[in-house]
Amino acid sequence: MLGLMQTQPLLISGLLTFAECHHSDAEIISRRVEGDIHRYAYADLARRARRLANLLQNWGTEPGDRIGTLAWNGYRHMELYYAGGGSGRVTHTINPRLIPDQIAWIINHAEDQALFFDLTFLPIVQLIHDKCPTVKHWVVMIDADRMPADTGIPGLENYEELLAAQSGDYEWPELDENTACGMCYTSGTTGRPKGVLYSNRSSVLHAYGISLPDVINISSRDSILPVVPMFHVNAWGVPYAAALTGTRVVFPGPALDGKSVYELIESEGITCAAGVPTVWQMLLNHMDANKLKFSTLNRTVIGGAACPPAMIDAFEERYDVRVLHAWGMTETSPVGTLSTLKNKHLELDPEAQKKILLKQGRAVFGVDMKIVGGDGKELPHDGRTAGSLMVKGPWVIEDYFRSGDPSPLVDGWFPTGDIATIDEDGYMQITDRTKDVIKSGGEWISSIDLENIAVAHPEVAEAACIGVKHPKWDERPILVAVKKPGSDLTREELLAFYQDKVAKWQIPDDVIFVDEIPHGATGKLLKIKLRDLLKDYRLPTT
Amino acid sequence: MLGLMQTQPLLISGLLTFAECHHSDAEIISRRVEGDIHRYAYADLARRARRLANLLQNWGTEPGDRIGTLAWNGYRHMELYYAGGGSGRVTHTINPRLIPDQIAWIINHAEDQALFFDLTFLPIVQLIHDKCPTVKHWVVMIDADRMPADTGIPGLENYEELLAAQSGDYEWPELDENTACGMCYTSGTTGRPKGVLYSNRSSVLHAYGISLPDVINISSRDSILPVVPMFHVNAWGVPYAAALTGTRVVFPGPALDGKSVYELIESEGITCAAGVPTVWQMLLNHMDANKLKFSTLNRTVIGGAACPPAMIDAFEERYDVRVLHAWGMTETSPVGTLSTLKNKHLELDPEAQKKILLKQGRAVFGVDMKIVGGDGKELPHDGRTAGSLMVKGPWVIEDYFRSGDPSPLVDGWFPTGDIATIDEDGYMQITDRTKDVIKSGGEWISSIDLENIAVAHPEVAEAACIGVKHPKWDERPILVAVKKPGSDLTREELLAFYQDKVAKWQIPDDVIFVDEIPHGATGKLLKIKLRDLLKDYRLPTT
Repeated sequence: MLGLMQTQPLLISGLLTFAECHHSDAEIISRRVEGDIHRYAYADLARRARRLANLLQNWGTEPGDRIGTLAWNGYRHMELYYAGGGSGRVTHTINPRLIPDQIAWIINHAEDQALFFDLTFLPIVQLIHDKCPTVKHWVVMIDADRMPADTGIPGLENYEELLAAQSGDYEWPELDENTACGMCYTSGTTGRPKGVLYSNRSSVLHAYGISLPDVINISSRDSILPVVPMFHVNAWGVPYAAALTGTRVVFPGPALDGKSVYELIESEGITCAAGVPTVWQMLLNHMDANKLKFSTLNRTVIGGAACPPAMIDAFEERYDVRVLHAWGMTETSPVGTLSTLKNKHLELDPEAQKKILLKQGRAVFGVDMKIVGGDGKELPHDGRTAGSLMVKGPWVIEDYFRSGDPSPLVDGWFPTGDIATIDEDGYMQITDRTKDVIKSGGEWISSIDLENIAVAHPEVAEAACIGVKHPKWDERPILVAVKKPGSDLTREELLAFYQDKVAKWQIPDDVIFVDEIPHGATGKLLKIKLRDLLKDYRLPTT
Repeated sequence: MLGLMQTQPLLISGLLTFAECHHSDAEIISRRVEGDIHRYAYADLARRARRLANLLQNWGTEPGDRIGTLAWNGYRHMELYYAGGGSGRVTHTINPRLIPDQIAWIINHAEDQALFFDLTFLPIVQLIHDKCPTVKHWVVMIDADRMPADTGIPGLENYEELLAAQSGDYEWPELDENTACGMCYTSGTTGRPKGVLYSNRSSVLHAYGISLPDVINISSRDSILPVVPMFHVNAWGVPYAAALTGTRVVFPGPALDGKSVYELIESEGITCAAGVPTVWQMLLNHMDANKLKFSTLNRTVIGGAACPPAMIDAFEERYDVRVLHAWGMTETSPVGTLSTLKNKHLELDPEAQKKILLKQGRAVFGVDMKIVGGDGKELPHDGRTAGSLMVKGPWVIEDYFRSGDPSPLVDGWFPTGDIATIDEDGYMQITDRTKDVIKSGGEWISSIDLENIAVAHPEVAEAACIGVKHPKWDERPILVAVKKPGSDLTREELLAFYQDKVAKWQIPDDVIFVDEIPHGATGKLLKIKLRDLLKDYRLPTT
């Protein structure tokens, strides 16, 4: 028997109209490519999103059509989120840090009908515009009086002029809540990028989930700064959760250096910021160098890559900012777990609490989680046994967009490619990526553990650990490290630093100092490149 | 085009399995009819709910069948919530404070197949058991060794014995998320009670909604005490939200007096409690009389009736407990609005903040809200214009259960029967019930405003204001008041207290002191009875 409650679909247009009605004057603040700080409110966002939806309709794009973006975090990008997804189209956010050929490949695979881009990315568009036959409109998002001349792109359009010509009257359609609204390609380090197609339902449920007190804890009293890019898994869902909660949101635009981010946090009274470790490292370096403090920031969400313990210490102990360590993937919308204490942990001493908070955290309701062994059998949640992490839930992927491959699911579970433990209290800890774990003599050695020890050394700026072939042990770990400026740290000193921190057989066989470690488009260590560089490396132990 | 995310249904069994997996040892604590304090955890709840689901199945009840309860707040009642709703049956919570004939009427209208009751309610069951032909099983929820003898109820069964005989293996079915899971009849002051049939979807979405930081702000670090009964709109959804967040929950059982509630709050370290003003008044009286303080309580949710400003002051100023003023109805699951400040209000002085927090609050995402005039046209959100409050959303009623009447919705909106204003920031304030507002000379006078002024007088214990017929003005307000013990307050003194607090024409025409004001089954003032008692009352002003 069915219940007798209303059954309105969960729609992202509903988030927008809610914010427009109940939080009309809550601010949306953006550092722009134009160089200034732009301020407006949810009522303006809603008004301009309706104009934009009219534009998409009057262009003749159809429901389901993909609309591409190459853009920083800002109000225009947020307008595209809501106008695209709210009108039944799909806002396809593209990572501008990929190489132009990859970008063109992604646009063509998605069959984007239009491409909206920030002026910063004009050079990319100049390279690809004649390789993307489905794109009928190339639109620069810049004030009309700042339009560049002689771009070489025929029919290049201006965002502000297009919007000004549209009516603000638009009725958001009552879509099936499973209708697609957004799309993001994984920037896989191997193989072709694969498209993840979010639905209205998955986006709204994820917005409820990440706003919860045990997750990002987003309220209308916050000022939230998503430093994580909007082209990177929807800035972790913040643009949706902000509307759901009526939260003041501040976008950093193109300026992600430590100084700019610090100044924005201070000038806008940010209470919560979200980003990847690489960006926070730049921020912390700037603050250390200039002896700065935070006035309003009380928490940072750190995800995208495992957060080194030293970074958590810096935020918590030096700056009194709580670190919310999170885990997720493009395929999980992205938030899967986040680390906050439970009632029973409140009496523990700070060191014991820290040990818990260092883990990637507990599942949010909406995400189911298990670990399995090589045979697919479920492993115990004992905090020690590591297995392949599998997840499922209403904001987890079912299938990739036109990948040509079968669904990645195994018995309904998505294999994350991470190796993890789960403890009795449900706290998950990534020990490695399936492809990065070092298999030595039948045992697994976590490359992440060895990297964390290295960066805890005061003279190490960055470190990556990979396995190289060994005739006896199959693989052995070596460490590739960047010294801090002025340091004359030696191989022997760094290896000695591992004593008593891991078992003897887990200590790397060698250290190679380099000037720079290659990073991928989203700031992650590119171990695949390191492995390639070191494929003929002869270990001193062989 | 549909998204490519997973589409698991939102099920209350999912809440239970989530809590079992990720919060297995989080406590559920109950004061029992047996007199003791019972403690167990979510893992035990899940295990016993599976046994109970097997019982319902082995009895031959079908999916969709209603299972009645007459019970206090406690772990067994929570088991019934999950076993009934999780298995596709409908847990029908019945208000034991109704008169036995009404209870029998409700059981028969719902066609309950079984009735589970606390021993306290044996006298009711003795009166009705032979009037309820659909009920095949009458089950007392009490330890087996405490079963009463000679009840006169043939085949009376014991809950613990029944559960002990069942297997703990049970697979929760993957239901359509719109499947009914719970049912609650409105205790209408006029006409027959009407059944509201909650769905799995509405219950899960409501649980997300009320857990948000701007609503009840429920985290796994809380210890939550729902004093509001589980037979009264699912204890405002706390039993579902607690599982969603893994929160320690404490049930007060039958002991709702000030002393018992206070002792439970202190002994269990309660951080958040939820209940109606009548219960809080008993608690405050007990604390005042004994000069007590709270050690851990930081907030109370007050709803079910407008909270008198004096009560908010008492909690906030005397006891440093934040009051979350809320509004809702059986038909809205129930939470519709809740009062918390926005970012822009943080700089206001405490008096200005208090003025905002006195309102019933802002809509939670999932509830749409508007006010309309007598012509059905939408009225402005200016904080002054009052109109009939209309709501809609995925946890708002679509229709009553087999009422025989058409759906109550008007153009998709549910008319709440409340008169309210909504301000520019979306804060709603109930000014009266549609049926209680006093229509004097074409103007509306809020009976609630006049009552709040009366109870703010230090010598008034309780007050009710109703309109009585007036030959010239149509209706005029009179105040019915209960003096505090020992007071010799006069009619004239109380009327003088209204000077400068309302317009002259809004001051009551008369005061009648009584020893007691009649209350309904849920603690609300029974104005219908007052009107009946005073229908021939001759105003001194006519």
